[in-house]
Amino acid sequence: MRYDQDRFEETTHAGIADLERAFEPGKVTWINIDGLGDIEVLQHLAARLDLHPLAIEDVLNTGQRPKIEQSPGYVFICLQAVHHDHERMIRGEQVSLFLGRGFVISVQEEADYDVFEPVCARLRSGRGQIRKSGADYLAYALLDSVIDHYYPVLEAIGAQVEDLEDALLEKPSRDTVLMLHGQRRHLTQMRRFVWPLRDVVNSLLHDSTGLVGSHAKLFLRDCYDHTVQLMDIVESNREVTAALMELYHSSVGLRTNEIMRVLTVITSIFIPLTFIAGVYGMNFAPVSIEGNKLPLNMPELYHPYGYIGLMALMGLIALVQLALFRKMKWL
Amino acid sequence: MRYDQDRFEETTHAGIADLERAFEPGKVTWINIDGLGDIEVLQHLAARLDLHPLAIEDVLNTGQRPKIEQSPGYVFICLQAVHHDHERMIRGEQVSLFLGRGFVISVQEEADYDVFEPVCARLRSGRGQIRKSGADYLAYALLDSVIDHYYPVLEAIGAQVEDLEDALLEKPSRDTVLMLHGQRRHLTQMRRFVWPLRDVVNSLLHDSTGLVGSHAKLFLRDCYDHTVQLMDIVESNREVTAALMELYHSSVGLRTNEIMRVLTVITSIFIPLTFIAGVYGMNFAPVSIEGNKLPLNMPELYHPYGYIGLMALMGLIALVQLALFRKMKWL
Amino acid sequence: MRYDQDRFEETTHAGIADLERAFEPGKVTWINIDGLGDIEVLQHLAARLDLHPLAIEDVLNTGQRPKIEQSPGYVFICLQAVHHDHERMIRGEQVSLFLGRGFVISVQEEADYDVFEPVCARLRSGRGQIRKSGADYLAYALLDSVIDHYYPVLEAIGAQVEDLEDALLEKPSRDTVLMLHGQRRHLTQMRRFVWPLRDVVNSLLHDSTGLVGSHAKLFLRDCYDHTVQLMDIVESNREVTAALMELYHSSVGLRTNEIMRVLTVITSIFIPLTFIAGVYGMNFAPVSIEGNKLPLNMPELYHPYGYIGLMALMGLIALVQLALFRKMKWL
Amino acid sequence: MRYDQDRFEETTHAGIADLERAFEPGKVTWINIDGLGDIEVLQHLAARLDLHPLAIEDVLNTGQRPKIEQSPGYVFICLQAVHHDHERMIRGEQVSLFLGRGFVISVQEEADYDVFEPVCARLRSGRGQIRKSGADYLAYALLDSVIDHYYPVLEAIGAQVEDLEDALLEKPSRDTVLMLHGQRRHLTQMRRFVWPLRDVVNSLLHDSTGLVGSHAKLFLRDCYDHTVQLMDIVESNREVTAALMELYHSSVGLRTNEIMRVLTVITSIFIPLTFIAGVYGMNFAPVSIEGNKLPLNMPELYHPYGYIGLMALMGLIALVQLALFRKMKWL
Amino acid sequence: MRYDQDRFEETTHAGIADLERAFEPGKVTWINIDGLGDIEVLQHLAARLDLHPLAIEDVLNTGQRPKIEQSPGYVFICLQAVHHDHERMIRGEQVSLFLGRGFVISVQEEADYDVFEPVCARLRSGRGQIRKSGADYLAYALLDSVIDHYYPVLEAIGAQVEDLEDALLEKPSRDTVLMLHGQRRHLTQMRRFVWPLRDVVNSLLHDSTGLVGSHAKLFLRDCYDHTVQLMDIVESNREVTAALMELYHSSVGLRTNEIMRVLTVITSIFIPLTFIAGVYGMNFAPVSIEGNKLPLNMPELYHPYGYIGLMALMGLIALVQLALFRKMKWL
Repeated sequence: MRYDQDRFEETTHAGIADLERAFEPGKVTWINIDGLGDIEVLQHLAARLDLHPLAIEDVLNTGQRPKIEQSPGYVFICLQAVHHDHERMIRGEQVSLFLGRGFVISVQEEADYDVFEPVCARLRSGRGQIRKSGADYLAYALLDSVIDHYYPVLEAIGAQVEDLEDALLEKPSRDTVLMLHGQRRHLTQMRRFVWPLRDVVNSLLHDSTGLVGSHAKLFLRDCYDHTVQLMDIVESNREVTAALMELYHSSVGLRTNEIMRVLTVITSIFIPLTFIAGVYGMNFAPVSIEGNKLPLNMPELYHPYGYIGLMALMGLIALVQLALFRKMKWL
Repeated sequence: MRYDQDRFEETTHAGIADLERAFEPGKVTWINIDGLGDIEVLQHLAARLDLHPLAIEDVLNTGQRPKIEQSPGYVFICLQAVHHDHERMIRGEQVSLFLGRGFVISVQEEADYDVFEPVCARLRSGRGQIRKSGADYLAYALLDSVIDHYYPVLEAIGAQVEDLEDALLEKPSRDTVLMLHGQRRHLTQMRRFVWPLRDVVNSLLHDSTGLVGSHAKLFLRDCYDHTVQLMDIVESNREVTAALMELYHSSVGLRTNEIMRVLTVITSIFIPLTFIAGVYGMNFAPVSIEGNKLPLNMPELYHPYGYIGLMALMGLIALVQLALFRKMKWL
Repeated sequence: MRYDQDRFEETTHAGIADLERAFEPGKVTWINIDGLGDIEVLQHLAARLDLHPLAIEDVLNTGQRPKIEQSPGYVFICLQAVHHDHERMIRGEQVSLFLGRGFVISVQEEADYDVFEPVCARLRSGRGQIRKSGADYLAYALLDSVIDHYYPVLEAIGAQVEDLEDALLEKPSRDTVLMLHGQRRHLTQMRRFVWPLRDVVNSLLHDSTGLVGSHAKLFLRDCYDHTVQLMDIVESNREVTAALMELYHSSVGLRTNEIMRVLTVITSIFIPLTFIAGVYGMNFAPVSIEGNKLPLNMPELYHPYGYIGLMALMGLIALVQLALFRKMKWL
Repeated sequence: MRYDQDRFEETTHAGIADLERAFEPGKVTWINIDGLGDIEVLQHLAARLDLHPLAIEDVLNTGQRPKIEQSPGYVFICLQAVHHDHERMIRGEQVSLFLGRGFVISVQEEADYDVFEPVCARLRSGRGQIRKSGADYLAYALLDSVIDHYYPVLEAIGAQVEDLEDALLEKPSRDTVLMLHGQRRHLTQMRRFVWPLRDVVNSLLHDSTGLVGSHAKLFLRDCYDHTVQLMDIVESNREVTAALMELYHSSVGLRTNEIMRVLTVITSIFIPLTFIAGVYGMNFAPVSIEGNKLPLNMPELYHPYGYIGLMALMGLIALVQLALFRKMKWL
Repeated sequence: MRYDQDRFEETTHAGIADLERAFEPGKVTWINIDGLGDIEVLQHLAARLDLHPLAIEDVLNTGQRPKIEQSPGYVFICLQAVHHDHERMIRGEQVSLFLGRGFVISVQEEADYDVFEPVCARLRSGRGQIRKSGADYLAYALLDSVIDHYYPVLEAIGAQVEDLEDALLEKPSRDTVLMLHGQRRHLTQMRRFVWPLRDVVNSLLHDSTGLVGSHAKLFLRDCYDHTVQLMDIVESNREVTAALMELYHSSVGLRTNEIMRVLTVITSIFIPLTFIAGVYGMNFAPVSIEGNKLPLNMPELYHPYGYIGLMALMGLIALVQLALFRKMKWL
């Protein structure tokens, strides 16, 4: 945990005793709880700052839908942050914020990744307006930091969808369709996180508790534009994946059609020819068992040009069929 | 039936005579009617508390859409509760609530399962705020108990959809698609129950009859968040099942395509070869019946390398075809 | 036609002369015109009660969208009623209502079926509140009677959809899909009738002409719930038919896939074997025409174990293929 | 062009000089410009009546979306009218109206068809209220005339869709699907014309310039109902075409399935039999070239009942297969 | 860059020093920055005119969603302009506008194409109202110029979609479907640009900063109509592409069906015939090895009319099958 004011102090791993000394009038205090392991601190804070038990419950039950709740003394914001882990997998975590008069309390679900790193860096360096502004600006900065983390994740999804588009146009396979399905599910999830985000920022913009000043609201409007843009990106990507799924369907349909065409052409040409060859492979005898001549039994077999003639006929049949198929645009 | 106050009394299977003594000023009375078998009690209560006949009709005609009706003296709420029975089948029942000044009347369609069990337990133990609060808090607790019962049912559906997803990716079969269809129908039904639920809670939140105090409203807001979350879960699951159905379609299409490819490759290779074999199975005679030589009739058959040569030719044809199919990426 | 008051009078097939005597202050008059054959009476009434010509036009041009029009002296309601005829076919008819101060005029398109029968019965028997209440309650009762007629029709559609679901899961056929398509069209039509119905009842609920009293409004609210429930039933059924259509598609796709698999397996096993048999059916001669031995021409044919060996080879090929297909899960 | 008042005057092919005399206080003037060839007159009128250049531009640039614009002195309405030409093709044209105090100017895109013919006829005959009412009623009559022209066009589309439905159920062919696609595109276009129409009429209904009197508004409400009904017809037809497209898909799928079944049954029965016949067409010799007996080489061929037995076996195989296919419900 | 007033001055490639002299009371100054290479000028202007840093950031980060932001001293508008490049590819660029009291600053992302060319031309020539009107009219002209650039791009997409429609009806191929997919993606992108455009123009229409006068608002309403029309075009085209995709699917399905029919007919006719020929190609011997007659072994082969009779039988079988297929409407 760390505290910040016009002059800047930072303490990590503070105990409950430190908390008592944390709040100082005229200064901004930020208490950041990394991971949900240390519930005692949170409960101590809740008692000290009169936070509603239902809000605390929401902090602890992860997987909440992003939402905002305005209570007399503070505003409670619940968000879902996403980031890529080391294997480029998408990881989500719940981030809760309490914005009060002169303090911000933030709780992150996971201890091993800090979405607020950029804000910490800015606070430490003293760059920008963050040190000069109040708790509302700090809350904006934290919110903005959560929103900014969506961009690389969505860009990665977008890039993978583009790759899949190329792969689909190249050769549709089971793997591409499964990967497309996977990206689709990611987008469904992102949508669940991003849509309520807009309402959260909008509520904060039209805040009536007086906790958010007009200076911070100017920046929150920018934040709001970002959430709208995120929604826009999610929706376009969803549309593209749906279109790709359809393209894949039509691609498979067309391939099946092509394969069928090849099968049909080859079968149609050779089956009649094979039948003719079969006919002349029949053993109808030119002489009966008693030795009588049977002149009607396959006289072609004993004709000097029988074989040559038949081969020519077969070639002709094949050519006519090829011409027919070409005319039907099957070749 | 049972009555509760600051000190707690509980009576089961009370008769109509008990009802008369049930209402006592300054105390909260909860009358719970299990099953619709005992209409007489309900009608007695309706007359005593001036409940509207149309509301009583709605209680008795099960299968109502969840709704809320605000009358001068009381609020009538009609809900659909769901739970799993012993065979893990989803069972629905209609639950009706009358919230009045100092009393709550609840009617459950089915006698053999009590959705209000957790509330009873809390009342008996005296834990939490429930004993200290008014009838509005009790109504909230009952409403919340109905909503809480949706979670395990929806989670079970979600889990089964996930299982079906794995099964589909593994091997699409008639059974998986039928089970998917079944879950889809469950979700359609859940949607019909959950969407109006939100309106019910919202109406209660903006209640103007003065029956719901600001303390209970704070909790109802939490309830409202839960209904929104339920809707969210239902909608995501519906989206996932729709995507799975599509995945299934494309999966079947792809399998058909693969099968066709195998069929076409095998047929395309062997049919021409069979034709050639058929040609050399023809019985064109080298000698006419009169004994004249017919040198044009299949001289290949009498060539020393005829057989060997033909076999080599056949092998070559097969190899060329395999190469072609490989080039067309059919293998 | 018939007139009703606190004491009850009923006249059928009244002429225009009777109409003059029909209206009596302090009493409620209901004039019901069965069928559009008798336009003269309607026009006489329109002149007498100052009904707008456009409303009369709407009454006569059947096939109107359900709507409501509030004029100073009366409210004009146009509805579509449905019922089953003797062959269980769905029949629709337009029902128009004029609700004025102390009178209700109803016009039914078809003379041979009376949707208002239950109301007539109640009036005749004097049961319920209908005799004690005003014209607004009578209008509510007529409206409710029209709405109640939707339930059996929609239930029949729902039951048939359920039957079709079973039939589809059993064996998808052309007939089931055509019946499904038919039910779908019925639902499309029902939707066109039911959606505006809600607006009609809602307009009546928020009536500002003073023609609808608060007592009748209480019942109209119940009516409104019924229209919402009708919409709900129509929409669920539409969703189910859409899901069934999809299920049907996937069912046909899967069946085609299975058929293809059988075809491919049988063809793949027998075509190579047939080819081999064809090879050994070739007539390559062991001796040339000149009598020279041709030891390279099919020596297998003259081997003592040639036939046995070949049969074994063929069996082996078939077994290997079966094993392969089993491994690919095609069997 | 023609002018109308309480007494009625009509002038055709009037020049600009006539225009000057056209406007007379207390009378209603209607100037109808057929075709966009005579821009000069329009520009003269625009200057005389102070019409905004952007409105004139909209008149001349055909293909506008239907819209309404209220300026201080007049209301500008832009519509798309449709009608059937002689070959029953759907033709659209842009119709623009200027409604001012005491005058209506109408401009039709095409000179060879007059959508306002019914209004002209009524004016000439002096029937109905049209001669007695003001410019607003004339504008309503023109608007209504445009809307009335949609009905036969949409009815023709509806009738063709019904015909296509029958054709599809009979035998799905390329032509029916192309015609269905064509009707679908017509409906898409109609939708673009009809949806904004409602907003136009609605705007006119809630007109605040005072140009539209309450008498005309009564009739405009009827007009509004007509636009809603048109939308309803367009949407139902769109739904029906979508359902038909799906029915067509499933129909084709089912036919393919049936064809496949026939192919598979025939192939499955005859391919094994052909193989067996092929086996006994092999030339394994009973005697080696050296003259030794080879008793293992096809002894069946020399058995007295060999042929009869084999034929019986083949028949048996075919029967077993037929029984199997019947059991699998493929026959 | 160039400056314009009632008398007109134009300066290109002005340095920062020139900027200082640019603003003169009572005149309108337009500073147009082509390309984002020259950030210094922009930052100088931002400092001089008190533009918000977040707005400047939005100017520099291209790919923004179109939006409008109203600050006390100025209005910031961010747009996406599109145009065709030399290879008829669609190119997008971000265009930012600052409209203040007496000045307009425009920033174009790309230096090599000037969407504002028509406005420059009008300014130079002094035609129209542009020189006589204020900065708000200039902003309108620039906005209108951006919107006008959408028309040719959307018309080109529409024309290509029409071409694809013809191609699809002619012969569905992989290329047409890929081109259709490409146009679809273009339309998705256009939609992202066009939808927020309407909100931008609408916000400007209801501007409350006083920077936009009523004269310019009259023209902005025309602009607003254009954005609605653009949306209309985009949506219709999207609908048409979706319908074409479906048409393509059904087209491929129908072709596959036809191919299957040909395959099945040919196979069904020749496979049984080939089997029969195979049977009479069997080598059942009329004489056993021991020299005994085997009269049951294929006596047909020794019948005088055996061959002729068999050929007649085969012809009959083929004819019966053809008749059957014709009856089933497969031919």
